[in-house]
This record gives sequence, C-alpha cells and structure tokens, in this order.
Amino acid sequence: MTPSVTVSIDAGGADAGPAEVSRAAALAAAEHGVRILLFGPASTLRPAASVEVYDAPLSIAKHPDPVRAVRANPEASVVQAVRAVAEGRADALVAGGSTGAALAAGLFRIKRAPGVHRPALAIRVPAPDHPFVMLDVGANSEVRPEHLVQFAHMGAAYAELLLGVGSPRVALLSNGEEATKGSQDVVAAHALLAGAGGGLNFIGNVEGFGIATGAADVIVCDGFTGNVALKVMEGASAALIGAIRGAVTESARSRTGAVLLRPALRGIRDAVDPERQGGAMLLGLRRPVVVPHGSFGARGIAAAVGVAARAVREDLGGRTHAALEAGGALRRAEGTSAAPASLPGTRDSR
Amino acid sequence: MTPSVTVSIDAGGADAGPAEVSRAAALAAAEHGVRILLFGPASTLRPAASVEVYDAPLSIAKHPDPVRAVRANPEASVVQAVRAVAEGRADALVAGGSTGAALAAGLFRIKRAPGVHRPALAIRVPAPDHPFVMLDVGANSEVRPEHLVQFAHMGAAYAELLLGVGSPRVALLSNGEEATKGSQDVVAAHALLAGAGGGLNFIGNVEGFGIATGAADVIVCDGFTGNVALKVMEGASAALIGAIRGAVTESARSRTGAVLLRPALRGIRDAVDPERQGGAMLLGLRRPVVVPHGSFGARGIAAAVGVAARAVREDLGGRTHAALEAGGALRRAEGTSAAPASLPGTRDSR
Repeated sequence: MTPSVTVSIDAGGADAGPAEVSRAAALAAAEHGVRILLFGPASTLRPAASVEVYDAPLSIAKHPDPVRAVRANPEASVVQAVRAVAEGRADALVAGGSTGAALAAGLFRIKRAPGVHRPALAIRVPAPDHPFVMLDVGANSEVRPEHLVQFAHMGAAYAELLLGVGSPRVALLSNGEEATKGSQDVVAAHALLAGAGGGLNFIGNVEGFGIATGAADVIVCDGFTGNVALKVMEGASAALIGAIRGAVTESARSRTGAVLLRPALRGIRDAVDPERQGGAMLLGLRRPVVVPHGSFGARGIAAAVGVAARAVREDLGGRTHAALEAGGALRRAEGTSAAPASLPGTRDSR
Repeated sequence: MTPSVTVSIDAGGADAGPAEVSRAAALAAAEHGVRILLFGPASTLRPAASVEVYDAPLSIAKHPDPVRAVRANPEASVVQAVRAVAEGRADALVAGGSTGAALAAGLFRIKRAPGVHRPALAIRVPAPDHPFVMLDVGANSEVRPEHLVQFAHMGAAYAELLLGVGSPRVALLSNGEEATKGSQDVVAAHALLAGAGGGLNFIGNVEGFGIATGAADVIVCDGFTGNVALKVMEGASAALIGAIRGAVTESARSRTGAVLLRPALRGIRDAVDPERQGGAMLLGLRRPVVVPHGSFGARGIAAAVGVAARAVREDLGGRTHAALEAGGALRRAEGTSAAPASLPGTRDSR
C-alpha cells in the first residue's frame, strides 16, 4: 500500500550529521507508514523503502542570520525541503537544528494559515505525571495581547490532538495568579481570554510553579519567557540529577543505594526524555512544521516525523482554524494574510 | 556591649504568625548581635534581650492592593516598621509575607537611593555548587534598558558582598547567547552593558540553562521573567524530587536503596534550602530591605535579619552607589530623585 502521507525532511541541521537523519527517515517510514522526501548531501544519505533522497549538500543551519541565509540560498537543504511542502509534493516538514531557519523558510514559502497573526512554537513538556503543551517557546520574542489569545486557541487544538484531552485547561503564564498580575500585555491578554468564546477553557494565570504541578494542559506565554522557562526547567532538572549523581558516588553505602534504586528511577528518566516528545511543533503555518532539537538522534527525529504525520492525519490545521474561528480570534483583515509574511521578532506597526 | 546595628522587623506578614517572627527576632538578636525593633500584635510578641516590641496589631500583608493599603493604613505593622527605618531609628528593614507591601511602604517612606531608577528584588539562588544572584525577581513587571543596566551594577555590588567573589561575572538572561537575541529591551540593554565602564565584568547573554550551570555570578532580567524563572526552577526541582520519592516507594528494593542514599542526599537538600538564603533583598532603596518568604519559619526569618545586618555593616548602599557611579549608570536628572517615587510596574513616561 502506498503511504497516504508524505513528510519532507531536512537532513542538514542535525548535530549528529545527515547520516543520522537518514537512519531516522528509514525508521520513521517503517514505524509511521509515511513516505519521506529527504533533502541533504546525497553522498551520505541512503535511500530506503518509502524514502526518496534529493541531493542538497548546502546546509544553512549554523548561519547566524537565518532570514538572510534562507533568502540568499534557495538551494539550501532546508529551503528545498520547505519548497516540497509549499508546492504540495509533501504534507508536512521536519527540520531540526535551526528553529530560525525552519521558521524563516516556513514563513516565506509555506506561509501563515489564514487569519493567523504569528506562528508559535509549541512543545509537549514531559512533566512527571502530567505532560502539557507550552507555547510560544521561541518563535516570537515580542508579542501583542491578540497574539497570546491566538496562541491559546492554537495550543488548545494541539493539546486535544497530542494529549488526547477534551476541553484542555488553558492558562496564561504570569508572575501572579490574579488577573491584574503581569506585564501590560499579559494583563490585556488575560482580559481578552476571560471573555473569549468558542468553548475555550481558560482557567486564568499560572505562576512558574504551575509548570510543575499540572495546573494546566496548555500554558501560554511569549516566546522570550517560554524559551527561558523551558531551558530553566531542563537546566534545573539536569543540575539536580547531576548533584544527586555526585553525592551518590561519595561512599560505598550510597553507591549500593543507587544500584538498588536504578530500576525505579529509569521510568522517570524515560518519561522526561525530550527525544520521546518529538520536538517542537510550529503552529500557525498552512502545513505542519516540526522542529526536533539539533541534538536529537535517529529515535528523536523519527518521533518528530510521527508527530508530523499525526498532525496531517488528524487535520491539525483544520482543527486549529475551527478553534480560532469559534473563539472569534481570527485576524480581522483576512485580505492581508496573502501579503508577504512579516517575521516574528520584528515589531509590526500597531 | 550595645549592638551597633538596629533592624526593624514587621511581624505581621509571616504565614506562621507573629509569634514565630518573635522567636526569629530573639534568635537573630543573639546570633547576629543586632538590636531589633519588632512591630506586630504585642499580645503575641515576647520581648527578649535586644528585642523591643511595638504594638501594631493591624496587618495588611494579605491586602490585594498593597499600594492603597500602605497609603490608607499608617498604623499597619509594615508601615510602622518602615517608618522606624525612614526616621533613622533603625538601619534596615526585614518584612516578610508581602513583597508588594514592603516595596510600596519602602518606596513611600525609605525612598529610592540617589540616582536609582527602580528598586529591584535580588535573590541568592542556591544552585548546587555554584550559587548566584538573580535580579529582578518580581519588583518590576516592565523595565527599560537603562533599568536593566542599573540592575547589573546593583547585582554585582550585592554579589561581591553576599557571595564573596571579586569582579563577579554578570550576564543578561535571554533566549539566545548572541547579542542580537531577545526582546528589544534586552538587545538594547546588552549593547549598553557591553559598553559599560566601571569594571563591570559583563559576560554577555545566558540562556535558561545558564541558571543551572553556574554560567554567571549575577543574572539580570526584568521582574516578570525573573519571577517566572525562579518559580519554574523551584517547581521543577520539587516535581523531580516528588517523582523520585514516588518511584522509590514502589518496591522493597528501592526503599532499601533510598535509606542507604539518605545521608548523601541530605547535603543537597540543605544546600538548596531556601530558608538558608534569608530571602530576597530589595536593592536600590536608601536602606537595606530584606523580604523573607511568607512561608519561612523562625530560622529563615533570622537568616534574613543576618543578611540585613551584613548589608548595613558592609555598607551595601555605599558600594552600590559607587558601582553605579563608576559605571556611569546613575540616573542623570539627579534633582528629580527626591520627587515622590513612582511605583514599579507602572510605566514611566519616556
């Protein structure tokens, strides 16, 4: 049977090199029943069942200015991979290693979905016992209140699909639970969300603690705060585990204790393993774009393909549009959505 | 010998009640050799050696609008405790339980130090092996670049005193290490700090990971991001410890392992114990103001008194002013610093 879903993959950004992405493609094609178009240096990529290789040796993943690099290098692997999606040859994109390049190429070629102000980067946070979706974790350093409102609807649609929860609880990240707490933009977004229609289950503000306590299924913030919060969480967990590991080797007694504990702790390690989450989803473009972390190996990149395939099969784009429409959160001037997309991080005139 | 340092304490804000603060006062007077003026309901406070009790039964710590509460209730315990400092009867303030009330009362009565735009709340973060100072963690939801520059100098002066490091490494919290990463205000602050004089050891941006890896001795951010980051860190650590605890009780084998590990882990628990840090220091007022967490017991509140006494004895105010002056970061319109202080969180006209 021919796979009904085609995923375009940029092999040029992974830290482990294109050959690792090639292994991921073969794995993903088999695991998720998808057809794959693989863009990268053909000499290091291996065709496999349902995997077609396209030679694109130029990588711009490490370029300091992704916007300029995308514009100047139409032959770059990520730009070719994006073009395959834009031209309808593939249904979704997986591009790891440079969120900036994926975002820039996605905006130029795939373009924003109708009525969306700004794409946002959403991630499944593997908090023990209560995973949740957080967005934006890095696409937009500055946002306006109406952007946060759209993120809330987009995140809710994604959480329904990804977490399988109905009517997900949506919260706004702030420095206090009261509606008056936060930056001016957060306070304004709170007021808009509290009055939002369309069945959005807005439960108010959560503080930083809420990220750990399962206070919400979707946590909404600007991309600056979200990026910092996500990395603080990862860094704090790693530091604590490192300190425990260090303490454990101090004595024969504690080393014995650690050996006895190992099986019990393995479950926690697996549950919070970022590679199992498949990376971040760029919401708000016309087609699903998944950005695995540059450090991911074949397993993590294959998981990203799995997330992309699911978004296509379960029509994440259609669900998201419906959620934005029901909530009255679509951008009003629909006609302008075909204009050249402005890049997040640059300030629109208000 | 009569103690040379007098600390004014508000007993009205602690979750554990005024009697616990009274115990803290007796403990701190003995431990830190200070004289204490204690403001709260006299019926529950016990005078002790070097502790004078002043009856102030009204607490405004739980008031939803601290600014209004401070203005409307000159007899409130925190306002009386602040007044003792403003009038020179005490050298420093310790007021736990409501940062908002301490900040509002401090601004109205103690006032900002000459040349300071905005006070900032600084905390010693007990990261394993490499504690550091982070500010602002909640006094200012919105800041301008020149505020962040002042926070950098103020934080450096505080880190020298608190951590005992010379030429502390100062970093700006952002969503990327490059100078161009971050919100517009962070990018502008980076440019100002990179050109700052006065021996400021600015090492550039750190990401959220840097909070755990000891990348800097001082991490500078706005109060919204800092508050979120701090609570994410605390929440993530607590969640991880909770998950480990849960996993440990799963089997007899792992329970035995946990018992063997306990002594090794006790050191970590003690090192990251917030009560040992003494709470947050409000930098940039004319006198030291320390805000222990509302949940602190007598030990934590006594530690806060210790931090306040040290700030007085080692002239934190003088050091801070010298650092701001050497860095050319004092507010230019010196004449306006005697005007009524505007409250952080409200936007100054630019």
